[in-house]
Amino acid sequence: MSDRLEAQFAFLNEADRLKQVLRATTLVDGSRPENSGEHSWHLALYALVLSDHAGPAVSIDRVIRMLLIHDLVEIDVGDVPIHSANGAAHASVETMAAEARAAERIFGLLPNDLARDLRALWEEFEAAETPDAVFAKSLDRAQPVMANLMSGGGTWATYDVTFDQLESRVGVKIAKGAPGVWSWVREKARPWFG
Amino acid sequence: MSDRLEAQFAFLNEADRLKQVLRATTLVDGSRPENSGEHSWHLALYALVLSDHAGPAVSIDRVIRMLLIHDLVEIDVGDVPIHSANGAAHASVETMAAEARAAERIFGLLPNDLARDLRALWEEFEAAETPDAVFAKSLDRAQPVMANLMSGGGTWATYDVTFDQLESRVGVKIAKGAPGVWSWVREKARPWFG
Repeated sequence: MSDRLEAQFAFLNEADRLKQVLRATTLVDGSRPENSGEHSWHLALYALVLSDHAGPAVSIDRVIRMLLIHDLVEIDVGDVPIHSANGAAHASVETMAAEARAAERIFGLLPNDLARDLRALWEEFEAAETPDAVFAKSLDRAQPVMANLMSGGGTWATYDVTFDQLESRVGVKIAKGAPGVWSWVREKARPWFG
Repeated sequence: MSDRLEAQFAFLNEADRLKQVLRATTLVDGSRPENSGEHSWHLALYALVLSDHAGPAVSIDRVIRMLLIHDLVEIDVGDVPIHSANGAAHASVETMAAEARAAERIFGLLPNDLARDLRALWEEFEAAETPDAVFAKSLDRAQPVMANLMSGGGTWATYDVTFDQLESRVGVKIAKGAPGVWSWVREKARPWFG
């Protein structure tokens, strides 16, 4: 039991570092960049509050668990802003390999059973194929749109994003898991792009 | 649907402010104070990883939901450090009344069904009587102990805390919901107090 607790706390203490990974997106009031720890909390709250927009096959509790761990690999790899010049790196072979190494290291701190379960949950999120993962990804794309909207442009201004780019990079993914959320957010966002 | 989404996002945008509520406890590396948003994330991760320390009547998914919303009232009331001079204010009639008003306002932003459900979950956490709430409270007390330990003393040094005070203010509550965690953490903490 003692060795098991050593491993559990080694992981929980390492996870603390996610609070120091900064994202391009700011807080809703624009005052500072958001970090990936508080982002993960906010997303889990999104899942709890927007659960009526999930399809019938979605387990909200699994989505919440997925969102709690979805960004942990950023402790090693950092966050790649989706609208940035290297936003395409999101899906590059190099980034995916680096994230897999990070997952191996970070989840590998846990006792074997937990390491296996949480790594499988993270891989499910990354693959974005199951209903739970598709809904989780939709929320992960919706939350920065709302932050940009509330803060007066945010990363749309930083990276000179067009409405068409928003639609193709982000909108289609939000619509895939949470179509009602995207049609509502889309109308809110459109005026900003003039 | 449109009015419902307005209310859901009014709540989610207001919740963002929890990322600006600072706690007395620092990050594990001592570099800066922790905020209550990232703290809530870290606690939910504690629940996920330490679930084998919960009693058989505990639903970890309900504990996670509870921990995600447990500190939202701090947006209005702030965090009262448990070891500070007014740490006793934690349980004062005034603090509890202020927190109830905050819950009314903040959960009141949500559509009625969600407002009722999440407020009830928060009240269950505050009452600390059900197995889920007792386990959630244990984690809420354990996480700052670990942060203090990792950062070389933290709020124990700030507030000149003795081992007996740690035991009576914090230890008994951790032991109530997660006795195995407390006996392990207790032995880690003891040497710091000399």
